[in-house]
Amino acid sequence: MTDHLYAVIMAGGVGTRLWPRSRMATPKQFLDLLGPRTMLQETVARIEPLIPLARVIVVVSQEHAQAVQNQVPDLPPENILAEPGPRGTAPCIGLAAAILHLRDPAAVMAVFPADHCISDAAGFREAIRAAAQVAEDDYLVTLGITPDHPHTGYGYIQRGASLGQVRGLPVFQVQRFTEKPDRATAQAFLDSGDYYWNGGIFIWRVTAILGEMAHLLPSLYTELEQVMQAWDSPRRAEVLAAAWERVPRTTIDYGVMERARRVAVVPVDIGWDDVGNWATLSRLVENDAAGNAVHGPGRPLLMDTTGTYIYTSAGRLVVALGLEGLVVIDTPDALLICPKDRAQEVRDVVEQLAAEGLHDYL
Amino acid sequence: MTDHLYAVIMAGGVGTRLWPRSRMATPKQFLDLLGPRTMLQETVARIEPLIPLARVIVVVSQEHAQAVQNQVPDLPPENILAEPGPRGTAPCIGLAAAILHLRDPAAVMAVFPADHCISDAAGFREAIRAAAQVAEDDYLVTLGITPDHPHTGYGYIQRGASLGQVRGLPVFQVQRFTEKPDRATAQAFLDSGDYYWNGGIFIWRVTAILGEMAHLLPSLYTELEQVMQAWDSPRRAEVLAAAWERVPRTTIDYGVMERARRVAVVPVDIGWDDVGNWATLSRLVENDAAGNAVHGPGRPLLMDTTGTYIYTSAGRLVVALGLEGLVVIDTPDALLICPKDRAQEVRDVVEQLAAEGLHDYL
Repeated sequence: MTDHLYAVIMAGGVGTRLWPRSRMATPKQFLDLLGPRTMLQETVARIEPLIPLARVIVVVSQEHAQAVQNQVPDLPPENILAEPGPRGTAPCIGLAAAILHLRDPAAVMAVFPADHCISDAAGFREAIRAAAQVAEDDYLVTLGITPDHPHTGYGYIQRGASLGQVRGLPVFQVQRFTEKPDRATAQAFLDSGDYYWNGGIFIWRVTAILGEMAHLLPSLYTELEQVMQAWDSPRRAEVLAAAWERVPRTTIDYGVMERARRVAVVPVDIGWDDVGNWATLSRLVENDAAGNAVHGPGRPLLMDTTGTYIYTSAGRLVVALGLEGLVVIDTPDALLICPKDRAQEVRDVVEQLAAEGLHDYL
Repeated sequence: MTDHLYAVIMAGGVGTRLWPRSRMATPKQFLDLLGPRTMLQETVARIEPLIPLARVIVVVSQEHAQAVQNQVPDLPPENILAEPGPRGTAPCIGLAAAILHLRDPAAVMAVFPADHCISDAAGFREAIRAAAQVAEDDYLVTLGITPDHPHTGYGYIQRGASLGQVRGLPVFQVQRFTEKPDRATAQAFLDSGDYYWNGGIFIWRVTAILGEMAHLLPSLYTELEQVMQAWDSPRRAEVLAAAWERVPRTTIDYGVMERARRVAVVPVDIGWDDVGNWATLSRLVENDAAGNAVHGPGRPLLMDTTGTYIYTSAGRLVVALGLEGLVVIDTPDALLICPKDRAQEVRDVVEQLAAEGLHDYL
């Protein structure tokens, strides 16, 4: 089976809440946010013991295709799928499924974002193995992240009837996908024990996902058929560009998963985090006794400062005197300072900059 | 009388509490901290309606003599007195008195620091006129700043018997100069109504101050005599350098004023501030309705931020999200962030940088 198992890494995100390090030119997944390797390199390294680079596909916007090649130099160039523009995760995944189907109609594809953190890589690979086995039975499979707090920023997956155990892991039918809940609903989900976070990690046969798309998103499927027919011809780029003008903008969750028939979930507890903002990132890195963490090539000087995350750029000195619970991100052209508990609102900062036409800083 | 009235501006300060804008290469007095003009330029402009540039002397360290000439291009070059090294205010003032005595033995000199803010310039000049008249009677005269809170960072002047009114201003003998008091003492000083802040502004005949130095600081006076004898000879620089190796390091307050005989104070209420640190500076500039002030050529973006002072450098974007009562000083190579109520401790930051050998940032 594993010879037909492919990884599809979605590297099209923008990561605005990690501004000012994450920019349109260098989004989150291309940054060394958590260590010496970039998020993309970490994502590749995590799956490579299970799936060799020859069967790793990266879907990315055209403008960042070269960045992928630079960061993963051994990735075969034909494994970089460049989208003409962002259309949401459903077209992105559809494109990968279509091209994989051309290469290997028996392909099982494991899809994951390029910008998440998973501390238990071995557990992650074990879960992918189990999920791939479930997918052989034409299920659309998702990993369900066991929640440890009532997060209101994630979608949730409610489990249904048990499908038994596969490779020692429990598997359930999916009862329901839900959108981001309010606080009370999230707490009820957590208390019930029946809900998991939707981490955007999916495993399925390409034939299964394409079949569901034909049924649930026929306008997308029609375009994917055009792309498949033209792929191995001189018209590839032209047809893809034209198709991407017409495909509906939608997510895989809303467009497919919430309405699909055979959906299963493999619950996991693998140290997953979407590194959603600077506050969550600051909890993922090593903190000193005072709860501070400093990153970057510059020089920080902390005096009587606690619970503060600081990024410094080359040649810059950053002095924090008497600070508590702040995020300080000092890049060569832009500086962000905010309390950790406001880090979610950095998205509003980016919107404000766009509204003011400050494109150089986006 | 006014033809013999000279201004002596002391421009040798370092202003470490205004780091990272104030640096060894460009100390506080050479910066545009409060408006389009530098502190030195403001100081010159404040006195010029009373004393023309021909009678304005600036005492400065040798390394900053050119900066004075650049910032005050119409100042006669011979009016810039370059000290071979910092020795405290007593030698600095002694040098100016000695050179003025050579030029005009009838000179009355008004001494003030180059880095203070005085919002009522007309009131300041009126007080200098009155003080100069008192000084004609061989008093060492100081302006006493009427205190409005129990500041523990200043020296205080206790008034004694009244000397009547001069040009409509009350004048008192000085009972006592005191060092920086503790909080309770400062409060008692304030409550008594008999105490003024020592703002470092002095007016006296050059013969009077040189006479007191001969009496109270004979080792300094001996060196000043050597300098006077050599001043109009080719040996000027050599003798000054040698003298400055030997002069005692001391302040005019400790070395002379606390022990002198005929000392008078002219109380003033002229909007004086020594712009001692970023918090005091932030109170001297215009604040918006939320208590924020932004300076500098860069671009600030404040979102839900109150009571915060921000300086930005050219080409830099500084985003403050959800901040309260902070100081953010963003210079091209160094960034300082601290609460306003810790601004006094920036001096410790500079000491720490020196201790760590980070001379590029000093």
